[in-house]
Formats: sequence, C-alpha cells, structure tokens
Amino acid sequence: MGTEMGKNDAAVAIAGGRFLIVGAASLVGSATADLLLERGAAAVTLLDNFAFGSTETVAHLEKDPRVRIVRGDVMRLPQLLAASEGVDGVVHLAAAMSISMDADPWTGLDVNIRGVQNMIEACRANRVRKMVFASSNAVYGYGPGVAGDLVEATPFHSLGAPSGAVIYGASKIIGEQLCRDAHRRHGLDYVVLRYSTVYGERQHYRAANALYIIETLDRVRRGERPRVVGDGSETKHFVYVGDVARANLAALVAPATDVAVNVSGPAPITTLDLVRMVTRLAGSDLVPEHVDPPAGRVRLTSGGPFRIDHGAAAAAIGWQPQVAMEEGLARLIRWRDATVGLDAPAVHR
Amino acid sequence: MGTEMGKNDAAVAIAGGRFLIVGAASLVGSATADLLLERGAAAVTLLDNFAFGSTETVAHLEKDPRVRIVRGDVMRLPQLLAASEGVDGVVHLAAAMSISMDADPWTGLDVNIRGVQNMIEACRANRVRKMVFASSNAVYGYGPGVAGDLVEATPFHSLGAPSGAVIYGASKIIGEQLCRDAHRRHGLDYVVLRYSTVYGERQHYRAANALYIIETLDRVRRGERPRVVGDGSETKHFVYVGDVARANLAALVAPATDVAVNVSGPAPITTLDLVRMVTRLAGSDLVPEHVDPPAGRVRLTSGGPFRIDHGAAAAAIGWQPQVAMEEGLARLIRWRDATVGLDAPAVHR
Repeated sequence: MGTEMGKNDAAVAIAGGRFLIVGAASLVGSATADLLLERGAAAVTLLDNFAFGSTETVAHLEKDPRVRIVRGDVMRLPQLLAASEGVDGVVHLAAAMSISMDADPWTGLDVNIRGVQNMIEACRANRVRKMVFASSNAVYGYGPGVAGDLVEATPFHSLGAPSGAVIYGASKIIGEQLCRDAHRRHGLDYVVLRYSTVYGERQHYRAANALYIIETLDRVRRGERPRVVGDGSETKHFVYVGDVARANLAALVAPATDVAVNVSGPAPITTLDLVRMVTRLAGSDLVPEHVDPPAGRVRLTSGGPFRIDHGAAAAAIGWQPQVAMEEGLARLIRWRDATVGLDAPAVHR
Repeated sequence: MGTEMGKNDAAVAIAGGRFLIVGAASLVGSATADLLLERGAAAVTLLDNFAFGSTETVAHLEKDPRVRIVRGDVMRLPQLLAASEGVDGVVHLAAAMSISMDADPWTGLDVNIRGVQNMIEACRANRVRKMVFASSNAVYGYGPGVAGDLVEATPFHSLGAPSGAVIYGASKIIGEQLCRDAHRRHGLDYVVLRYSTVYGERQHYRAANALYIIETLDRVRRGERPRVVGDGSETKHFVYVGDVARANLAALVAPATDVAVNVSGPAPITTLDLVRMVTRLAGSDLVPEHVDPPAGRVRLTSGGPFRIDHGAAAAAIGWQPQVAMEEGLARLIRWRDATVGLDAPAVHR
C-alpha cells in the first residue's frame, strides 16, 4: 500500500456507508442518525438498551427503510458482534455520566469500561473501518485546577470533586486509552471526541450541567422565577447537538486516526447568563432567584472562568461549531414547547 | 456516641487484632504480614491467586499458627467474603501494574476496579473496621507535567504516556474513589496510601521502575557492565518495603479515615546514581553503559526532576520513611545473594 492510500484508509465516506450508533436512543444518537441518513448513508443501525433513552427519541426514524433499531446492551458482546456485522463505521455513545455513576458505580463502570472493550472487540472481529468514541471534557476533571483554556494536554484534576464525577472522568480516560491500545495493537482506526456539555432538541435529564436549561424553562413555563445556585458566576461550556452530530460525521470522513480532540460550542457562558438567556428566549421577564445548592445533587465546579478550546478539532477533522448558544437554545425551546406542551411536567430520571 | 469515641472508631490496634492481606504473596504483602505478626496480631490471613506472587514469598510464614494462607481471587466475591469474616482490618494490595496492564488490560481492569469493588462489598458485609487501599504515585501520571514536588493535589497527567501506564493510573484513581464513595455511602473507614516505587527484599519483576535495581544487580553479578537507558538523568523516587509495611500498620492504627496520602522514601534519585549505587554496593567498579530504550518495554518518564512529598502522611497517620536508599539497597542485595546465589538467572514474569 502506498502512503497516500494508507493515509486515507481511515476516511469513511457517509454516502453509501453502513453505520452503527451505540447508545442511539439519546440526544446525540438521534441527531447523528438524522445527519447520517440526510447525507446518504445506506444503512444505520441504532442500538440501545433503552435503560435511559426512550423509544420516542428514535421513533421518527423507524419508518426509514435504511434504519434498523436493535435492543442490545454493551455488556453483551454477542449483541455488539451481531449489530456491527458489515458495518463501516461505529459511533460509540453508550455511557453512564456523573449522575448515573454517583447512583450506581458498578453499572456505570461496566458500561464505560467493559462496554467500550466489548465494542472494540466487535469492531476488530467485524473489521469495522473506524470507531468514533464519545469522550467528555470530564477528562479534565473538576475543581480548583480547571480554569483558563482547556486544551487536549490539560491534566485530570480531581481534588475535592464528587466521587461520581471523578469516577466518570477516569472511566472516560480509560475508554480513550483502550481505543489507543487497540490502534497500536490491532490497527483499529478511531477518533476520540471529547464533548463538552451537549444541549438541544430531545434534551434529556442525565447531564449534570445541562439540567439548568430544562429546569429554567420548566419553571418559567409554570410562571415561577428561575433559580440560580449561588451567584451563578461559574462557567459552563455547552455545545449544540447538531454541531456534535456534524463532529461525529467529520470524524468518520476525515483521514484522521488515533487522535483525541475537544468538541465544544463557540463560547462559554456563565450560569447566570444562561438562565437569563433561557428566560428571555422563553418570552419571560422573570428575574432569577439565587438559592443554595440542593442536598445530594452532584455539583461540578471549576477553579475559575474557563474555555474549552476546539482548535485541535479544526486541525484534525476540519470541524468547528456553527450554532451559537442563543440560536441553539431557541431551537431547544421550540422543540420542547411543541413536544411536551406548556403543562406537561418534566420526567426526572 | 461522643466525638472522642467517634473519632477513634477508625483506629484499629495491631496487638490482638485480626487482619486480611489481599495480594499477600508479594513484596509488600509479605513484609506487612511479618510486621503484623511481630506486633502481636492474633490472626493474619494471606489471600492471593498466586498468578504473580509465588508461594515462596509467604512460605516463611506458613509455620506461624496465627497465619492462614488462602488461594483466592479478587474477582470472586464469595472468596473475599469468606476470607474477611471476623477480620478487623484489610490491607488491599492486589493489583495489576503498568506492565501487566499493557499486556492484558481486560484482566488488569477487572483486578484494579472490580476487585476493589468486591473487597469493599466484603468489608461492608463483614463489618471490617478499616481498609487500607494500596494506590500509587501513578495517580499523578507521567510525562511533561510531572515535575517538581508531587503532592496529593497534583493532577493526573497522561499526554503521551503509554496506554498501559495511563490505564493503570486511572484505574487507581477509580479504586480510591470507590473507597471514598463507600465511606460516604456506608461509613466504611479507609486510608489510601499512594506508594511510590517499592523495592526491597523479595523484590519482584512487575514494577516498571524497580526493574533497574535487579537488572543492574544481575548484570554486575555476571561481570557485565550495568546498563542505563539514555543519559540516566531522569528521577525515580523509591520507597523501601519495610517503610511501606510500617505505613500500612500506621494507617490501621491511626484514627485517620477518608484520606489519601503519599508513601515515598526519604529522597528521590536519578537512574544513573541508582545504577552506580547498586553497582558499588554489589562490590563492583564496573562503569555503566548507556543504551537506547529496548523496544516494547513500557517506559515511564517525567517532565523533569521531581520529588514525591510525604508530609501529608506524617500529618494524617504519623508516618515517615526511615530507610535511606543506600541501606535499603544493601539489604536487598544481601537477600538476593543469599537466596538466588550468584549464578541463578532471574525469572522474568
């Protein structure tokens, strides 16, 4: 094989390609499936155990003859082997996040570590050409050290962070390294995308940082003042789900392999500004109320203002975010108003 | 319960106490057993699967009527439940280190994560009063960021480090957090000790950083020049096994709980100085030969000179190292010469 050919082995075309999304009944999974189909994918298999994701998340896709919905679990290797047969590219999203990890670290560690190992084994066995692994900015940790520009070389800070959050971050570090190990050992091509907090249509309740958006909207829709924990000065850095779906496709299409890059939105925002923006976009002029942190909730803090740099993603896979917070939130609010109506209570899982 | 009583609940007396060492057929395990028996422990159960440790490591203990040797595996919860019945304190040493993790990450992650979870469950079920969890300075990682004073707040650096080493470090971070989670959730008292590289009598071949000592000795004993990879200027920070055994007992005896501290020797040393010291103590004047790194070996690097601070251990459990490198190495060499003779080849596992 020539250098040029070797270099492009890791590039997987979307049109005519066959794909598997694992953990598909999710915010990112459904948006990625939409985009794969829109760009001409020949087949998209959606695998989920539906422990968190509801069948509603993917219901709109069921009628497309190219879509196959599979009830499966990442802890069951034979199910992953069956689902990945003949597949060109895998987008591996199945994961327990901080809140789930806090509630049940045994299951969370199984999913985030053994689940990734199983998926890698299935990719190897079926000669899947590329795996996109959904990691997280949780690999930079939480607490005092997390401030300034977070780049791919930023170390993992854990001092004083909640154990569920630390276990989550460390499990993602291990997942990334298992991909790296499989590349070195078996030549598996992969791209790790470290998502920042994802928000958008079909928003769920599992991301600790994204809860503010839906909670604010729910309160405002009930005519209650939105709540801000503390002074609301701490930074959050979100990314719109449509931009994440584009990043997943860019990672498949690019010749890049054996690389981990951040996927974050155009700019960070403070919690107070976020709550104000959601309130305003919901057509309300209610003034936020500052409250103490609720007991028992996993709180993720930083050491000061920070920004998750996405320059490396532009260089490696030619991706950058397109949707500003204001536009993305407006879309989320339109979706939520259309879907749940004004009175439906939010289901907290 | 009064404050004073509550404060001392986590203090476990050695004399008359009953203990379980998990991963006992090891350098640290056998030294810890020796010291527990010497200080009047009523019963010491030594559990190991003997996958790495040989029965020889604990053979000298078999005749003590207080000692029970159990062949068991941390992946088998019933075996841990049986072994920890009626036990006051557990010293949990069983772990896969960087080299094993590199060779077989599936087994390594099982041992370092599920094994710890199983031990915690057994401690809870049997109301074990305290667990000492052997962690590692690998929680600070490797590579450019690792330099200067490494304290308990130092974050985990992984950029560019070998995947086996990163997975090992992250698995230890998770093990520590599982202890923390069990303390918060169930009141399990524990102390995490982050050992630096342990050396001493009954030295094994599983610690990437300790290999230099035995390899140098083996070469010098064969009349060959000792080898130094590169210029030998990089730092290592060792700790003598007898000091580690004392730290394990100090962690049991102290009222401290829910804390993680470094356990390191009096001072760091460069690789070149280490090789020279071993050579001199072995009675040789051979001059080290500088060589390129062997292919396929897990190499652990730092960003510059570093020192693993052990001040927090003094504060939390009243421990500090006593044995200087020169004295510890002299003991190791006497043991090895007496045990394997001058001609016996080293067994690389």
